[in-house]
Amino acid sequence: MKEIKLAIIGGGSRLWAIQFLKDVTLQDKLKVNFSLYDIEKQAALNNVAVGNEIFKANNKEGQFTISVEDTLEDSLKGADFVIITIEPGIMDCRYGDLVLPDQYGILQTVGDTTGPGGIMRARRALPIFFEFGKAIEKCCPNAWVINYTNPMTLCTAALYKAFPQIKALGCCHEVFHVQEYIASLVGEWFNIPQPDRREIKIDVTGINHVTFITKALYKGEDLMPRIKQLSLDPASYPDLTEYSKDLIANEKYFTCQHKVALSFLRDYGALGAAGDRHLAEFVPFYLQDEETPLRYGFTRTPYEFRVKRDIEKKQRVYKGEDLIAKPSDEEGLDILLSLMGERTLRTNINRPNLGQISYLPKGRIVESNGFISENSIEAIVSQDPPVGVQNLVRRISDEQEVILNAIWDGDDERLFEAFLTDPLVNLPRDKARELFDKMMIASELKY
Amino acid sequence: MKEIKLAIIGGGSRLWAIQFLKDVTLQDKLKVNFSLYDIEKQAALNNVAVGNEIFKANNKEGQFTISVEDTLEDSLKGADFVIITIEPGIMDCRYGDLVLPDQYGILQTVGDTTGPGGIMRARRALPIFFEFGKAIEKCCPNAWVINYTNPMTLCTAALYKAFPQIKALGCCHEVFHVQEYIASLVGEWFNIPQPDRREIKIDVTGINHVTFITKALYKGEDLMPRIKQLSLDPASYPDLTEYSKDLIANEKYFTCQHKVALSFLRDYGALGAAGDRHLAEFVPFYLQDEETPLRYGFTRTPYEFRVKRDIEKKQRVYKGEDLIAKPSDEEGLDILLSLMGERTLRTNINRPNLGQISYLPKGRIVESNGFISENSIEAIVSQDPPVGVQNLVRRISDEQEVILNAIWDGDDERLFEAFLTDPLVNLPRDKARELFDKMMIASELKY
Amino acid sequence: MKEIKLAIIGGGSRLWAIQFLKDVTLQDKLKVNFSLYDIEKQAALNNVAVGNEIFKANNKEGQFTISVEDTLEDSLKGADFVIITIEPGIMDCRYGDLVLPDQYGILQTVGDTTGPGGIMRARRALPIFFEFGKAIEKCCPNAWVINYTNPMTLCTAALYKAFPQIKALGCCHEVFHVQEYIASLVGEWFNIPQPDRREIKIDVTGINHVTFITKALYKGEDLMPRIKQLSLDPASYPDLTEYSKDLIANEKYFTCQHKVALSFLRDYGALGAAGDRHLAEFVPFYLQDEETPLRYGFTRTPYEFRVKRDIEKKQRVYKGEDLIAKPSDEEGLDILLSLMGERTLRTNINRPNLGQISYLPKGRIVESNGFISENSIEAIVSQDPPVGVQNLVRRISDEQEVILNAIWDGDDERLFEAFLTDPLVNLPRDKARELFDKMMIASELKY
Amino acid sequence: MKEIKLAIIGGGSRLWAIQFLKDVTLQDKLKVNFSLYDIEKQAALNNVAVGNEIFKANNKEGQFTISVEDTLEDSLKGADFVIITIEPGIMDCRYGDLVLPDQYGILQTVGDTTGPGGIMRARRALPIFFEFGKAIEKCCPNAWVINYTNPMTLCTAALYKAFPQIKALGCCHEVFHVQEYIASLVGEWFNIPQPDRREIKIDVTGINHVTFITKALYKGEDLMPRIKQLSLDPASYPDLTEYSKDLIANEKYFTCQHKVALSFLRDYGALGAAGDRHLAEFVPFYLQDEETPLRYGFTRTPYEFRVKRDIEKKQRVYKGEDLIAKPSDEEGLDILLSLMGERTLRTNINRPNLGQISYLPKGRIVESNGFISENSIEAIVSQDPPVGVQNLVRRISDEQEVILNAIWDGDDERLFEAFLTDPLVNLPRDKARELFDKMMIASELKY
Repeated sequence: MKEIKLAIIGGGSRLWAIQFLKDVTLQDKLKVNFSLYDIEKQAALNNVAVGNEIFKANNKEGQFTISVEDTLEDSLKGADFVIITIEPGIMDCRYGDLVLPDQYGILQTVGDTTGPGGIMRARRALPIFFEFGKAIEKCCPNAWVINYTNPMTLCTAALYKAFPQIKALGCCHEVFHVQEYIASLVGEWFNIPQPDRREIKIDVTGINHVTFITKALYKGEDLMPRIKQLSLDPASYPDLTEYSKDLIANEKYFTCQHKVALSFLRDYGALGAAGDRHLAEFVPFYLQDEETPLRYGFTRTPYEFRVKRDIEKKQRVYKGEDLIAKPSDEEGLDILLSLMGERTLRTNINRPNLGQISYLPKGRIVESNGFISENSIEAIVSQDPPVGVQNLVRRISDEQEVILNAIWDGDDERLFEAFLTDPLVNLPRDKARELFDKMMIASELKY
Repeated sequence: MKEIKLAIIGGGSRLWAIQFLKDVTLQDKLKVNFSLYDIEKQAALNNVAVGNEIFKANNKEGQFTISVEDTLEDSLKGADFVIITIEPGIMDCRYGDLVLPDQYGILQTVGDTTGPGGIMRARRALPIFFEFGKAIEKCCPNAWVINYTNPMTLCTAALYKAFPQIKALGCCHEVFHVQEYIASLVGEWFNIPQPDRREIKIDVTGINHVTFITKALYKGEDLMPRIKQLSLDPASYPDLTEYSKDLIANEKYFTCQHKVALSFLRDYGALGAAGDRHLAEFVPFYLQDEETPLRYGFTRTPYEFRVKRDIEKKQRVYKGEDLIAKPSDEEGLDILLSLMGERTLRTNINRPNLGQISYLPKGRIVESNGFISENSIEAIVSQDPPVGVQNLVRRISDEQEVILNAIWDGDDERLFEAFLTDPLVNLPRDKARELFDKMMIASELKY
Repeated sequence: MKEIKLAIIGGGSRLWAIQFLKDVTLQDKLKVNFSLYDIEKQAALNNVAVGNEIFKANNKEGQFTISVEDTLEDSLKGADFVIITIEPGIMDCRYGDLVLPDQYGILQTVGDTTGPGGIMRARRALPIFFEFGKAIEKCCPNAWVINYTNPMTLCTAALYKAFPQIKALGCCHEVFHVQEYIASLVGEWFNIPQPDRREIKIDVTGINHVTFITKALYKGEDLMPRIKQLSLDPASYPDLTEYSKDLIANEKYFTCQHKVALSFLRDYGALGAAGDRHLAEFVPFYLQDEETPLRYGFTRTPYEFRVKRDIEKKQRVYKGEDLIAKPSDEEGLDILLSLMGERTLRTNINRPNLGQISYLPKGRIVESNGFISENSIEAIVSQDPPVGVQNLVRRISDEQEVILNAIWDGDDERLFEAFLTDPLVNLPRDKARELFDKMMIASELKY
Repeated sequence: MKEIKLAIIGGGSRLWAIQFLKDVTLQDKLKVNFSLYDIEKQAALNNVAVGNEIFKANNKEGQFTISVEDTLEDSLKGADFVIITIEPGIMDCRYGDLVLPDQYGILQTVGDTTGPGGIMRARRALPIFFEFGKAIEKCCPNAWVINYTNPMTLCTAALYKAFPQIKALGCCHEVFHVQEYIASLVGEWFNIPQPDRREIKIDVTGINHVTFITKALYKGEDLMPRIKQLSLDPASYPDLTEYSKDLIANEKYFTCQHKVALSFLRDYGALGAAGDRHLAEFVPFYLQDEETPLRYGFTRTPYEFRVKRDIEKKQRVYKGEDLIAKPSDEEGLDILLSLMGERTLRTNINRPNLGQISYLPKGRIVESNGFISENSIEAIVSQDPPVGVQNLVRRISDEQEVILNAIWDGDDERLFEAFLTDPLVNLPRDKARELFDKMMIASELKY
């Protein structure tokens, strides 16, 4: 059995880290020594305790070790794999990201990737990721690095900016949801049980959260003509306001009906490949008022709910059933096994553009399919989406490039450039400046 | 004396054509036979009468002839030069362009280049320009063609789409105004009489009406550091509301203080090179409310004023002083003389990108400096503006490419794509569709 | 069991077609109806007879049918797969390709891909491939088309030129030989039995027969440092003249020691990925005299031997052991099974550049890795080789582009352009013209 | 009258420097203080003496001063203009450049730009130019720098490599000769006195010494159809062997009949725009034997003649008529006056590619038209030549890029890469290495 050291930076995070520990417990190919690091050390220590219980509950005690390090460097030293899953800044910073723009009439659904909230979050996260990149160069330059933190594109780009030879990728499950949506349609259309999402072979192109599907095959059959037809049918867009109100009443803030994704196929010629809450933030036309999202079946996640859920997560006690490993839909383990040579995997990942996305400059972090095998990730060339989609994506990527370099250079005036032209910021220039300045202060909040 | 045939398409237009006739009268190198064509033949006939009076009043009767043709082909046949200056659609169409968007809260200052108004105007103009291109290919493929019609970029692009070997350029005086603004600053700074705008040597880059100046020299001295400093000084942006109200009271709708141009230098690193009324329509932040433009010293031109002025123009009688030729600031005559080998000229023109604008694809119509000499126009490579400016310009150019191809293909759904992502259209998607459909109907109005 | 129609164009060819029939016999997933077409119908009929014997000898009679069609169209109609393996022109044409250049001091080893021989062969083959492309568009536009004919790059390019939506790829086993050479080194270095070549994971970049390996992994371990070291060791390049003379004496004209491939790594920084006989024809420095190839362990294939072998091939009788299917090293069957969804395959293929080769224009036919799965071939982005290698490859690809378009346009003067600058043609301009004209006549020979 | 400091690096050179001093004496706009620097100080002192005599003989003593500095830095300090015209290495180094390749059957005509001789000359010159670039950055970063030294492209590239903000250009009169050749044809065709070469307006594209003319206008008329016809006429290529032998007998080694230039138009579709002696070195087909150049009317310059002429130049005494300024065909003075704002100039220059040459990467030093005005040089976009010419030029430029970086990195193995693929080096690889090693030693010769 191969043995590896796996560092988890942000090792005190709850949901994701614990799910990942359970996932890893499911395989018998690798002995894994987990090394956690978190600026909140106690949170990481808590996860060590849960981790050990998981190994025990699943009878895998000999196969795994788990510990916490005091410093980032100690955690990274000699690591074969590094996983990054951090929260940049304290929860109070999210108030600035989410509530201040509201006061200026800017409606965000998520606020962690783009728009005012995404820009401020990047402003907090990127200096940290520059540090991570440099520390990895020093401590484990050959490690494979998997980033789960948003803004995904910019955080991953920051790692490459600090250490260009890094072997990093960004992972995100948003595409899977749309894949699953197509799988459900396949079940319907062919009158069969809904196939596993992996049986829907898709071609993915774009950048994280503003990704598109140009091709979808099921058993070799091209599904796009059917999906296109669906997108053109006005009956595909009923008024979902009541449904959305139910979502709100039940605090189901993370769900959607993929109507925005579908409308992109109708209006631009390619199917959106992320949840509607994310897609809507990249165009100016779904978040102009409070009603439109509800009509399309998706909701804005309130700041208060985020605070509440954060507290619940931290206080949650894992026991009994919670400790038993069951396969999840996350692909972290598959990637690990593939890079260790135990299988191969073709899936969507976020990596520097080497030519896989023809309509973006080389070097930009893009989302498209990759082929993962032993110690190797290769980029698969995406089919070009219609020109209108290319323009949409390029616009975002260009803006992100300005953001990345502005933060790298510590030049907040240039950061304001990006803020000013963000599609969500429909403000008179001086109001935009006022909001930017307020958000900058809120984003600096520390314990 | 060289003799040429010069066709004026839209030869019934008043102000511009009459000014041009007077300009041409000023030189003694060329015998010119003017051949006018206009779908309103009477208007062209009126101009013939005025033209003959001008030649007489300036004692140049032997040097010029002027006549009207019944068909476009007859006017073009054997022409050495073709000038295009038309109004696409009847005045009532402008109601749709200008007033309908208002009703949806979309504020436009000009509405003839970009935004909802510009898109609809393109929808009317481009099929006509496709015809012009084909007719020129048939009747006078070697003629030099000068277009003055807006939307400048798209109309010029349409000529090339229909007849790729056409020798066409688009001319616009917006850049001159900013050049003159800089000349006025030079006068101030160096305590000298304001120099002629041509003494300010500028490097121009972008696309028509969203053009930028990256370099300005006066007698070899770099002016940009001083202009930059000016742009950073808060005192450069006083509240000009009272001034603007005066403009409105006096119906001076075409003037501005170049504050938007200057603010672009502050916020994006390059000086805007068009009137503020045009520049403001390309970014989402100067036309979010009625107050902002006034504060910055520029105004929106009301539809009613346009109607009134149009009537006045048509009814105006030219006599006495009006007939005497005096040099104007227009460069049409200079271009003519240069192409005929009588001088050379380095000036900003709109032409297909051959590499002069590095950040736009080849073939796009771009605005930058050209070098004009006998039977030759050559493109001068522009210096790259800051990345943020490149992104702004590319976004517009990309949108225009979608518009051009949508109209060429007769695909109004794709036209809606462009409409939906235009920076001025901050509407919920379904409202946007509603407005688009209404505007399409208004744009079809015929006598 | 899935059932397919598979057309073999050039179905009268011997070695390859018979090997392929045996290969296909080895699997139990697909029922295959072979439809042969050949301008020499009798040759195809002979293969039908052998084919039926093969199916019988391997007890697979029910699973396969095989027949001959009178016309190309009949063979293609309704085909799911098309395989092309033809000889362009009669054997006597090869005299012109191979012997005439000799008379001018131009030494070729193979003469079917590049250099004077390759150019003339292209001159004969491409018009035929333009026809194939058009016929496929008409008869089976959705078929997957596999080309085995040289010049591989140009023949495949010709298919796309005639029918841009064709789903064609070119297959060549030259890369496998170098893969096997590396496998032999791995056996030596790690003191293990020589692994299967497929266990050497390589990154391939270039165009057919002038392809390079930039990366080679065995069980995740990077082999390039060891291969580089080998390439730098003078002992790796002993004088192999005696060995080569033995090859000649024994008519072993298709073998090599991969010394040229290795020298490319030493001199240019990337390992050649084709047999030395092919690689040497693309640079001017291995074929300047008769001695150099021998010293490096490879030989020129004489025209007379080709004639003799051709006769032997045609006269060969297949019986007994010859009919029993055993796995070969060819990947045709693997590709077939992958496209039918029975497996997946990552291997080197020749396809239009969509971005997988960053240093060549889009659309050029390039050789690099592809990922083949059900009804889908995706391009995998290659790692960039050193600049010197990029220059070498681009030069060849540029020349081929001139050849392709010259033949498409029927412009032999432009074909001469390519001839004149081919690295092998070191002749005074007028001598070059003389040879070109002679070869053109020889290439027109018909029965 | 404006006053400037003008440094001449290599100020001891004879012909060129003295001609330039006389040229500058012809104008009355500028007071010039010449500051000479030369590693052979005595040579510079000699030129000071001649310079003072020239000023006196032309009655311009008050307008000019001339002196010699001991160090490069002193000469550059505060310079407004820098002119570089050096000989890299001692005359004996030219033996290696010119005679050693002969011994291996490599025939060169000039041997200072490309081929083995050009590569070695670059090997000597570039480190010196890196020093110049750094010294200019330190002493006069805003000076305009004009380089006359060969290899022109690489020396100019070296200045930019060392100091990317440098305002440098390379000047070469080779294009003028072809312009003059066309002027002579115009005289013939139109039965008029031969016009001044400046009246032939040409579009120039390529890199120095392998430049092409795609367009030629005389008074607005396109001359290319006539020149093309001439190029296709076999009578344009008589056997010029006797003529060439006369050239040799009379030691007229620098002349030619532009037959190679013309043959490029016939064979590749664009007229060569340098002397045949230069053009021939970039393709493999004019220098394969001793007879071909003679047949085409040009000769190889013997090493012995170069030695002899060098001695004569150094010993020459300037007096009487030699001191009187008369206009020459060189454009150095025109450039100076244009940059000082006294006129404008459109001419061919060597500058970094900003987009003026669409088929070469940005940053490469290219030759094309520029527009020179007060304190400004702008690039004019060239028309694309036929693809075959693009390929030729790109191949050379790619090779030069390898050379530039190899010398910058001090990596002679990579330099050998370039040597090995140079079109003139048709040697077996090991012979090529042998020659390279010998030439490297010869190139290191010092006094």
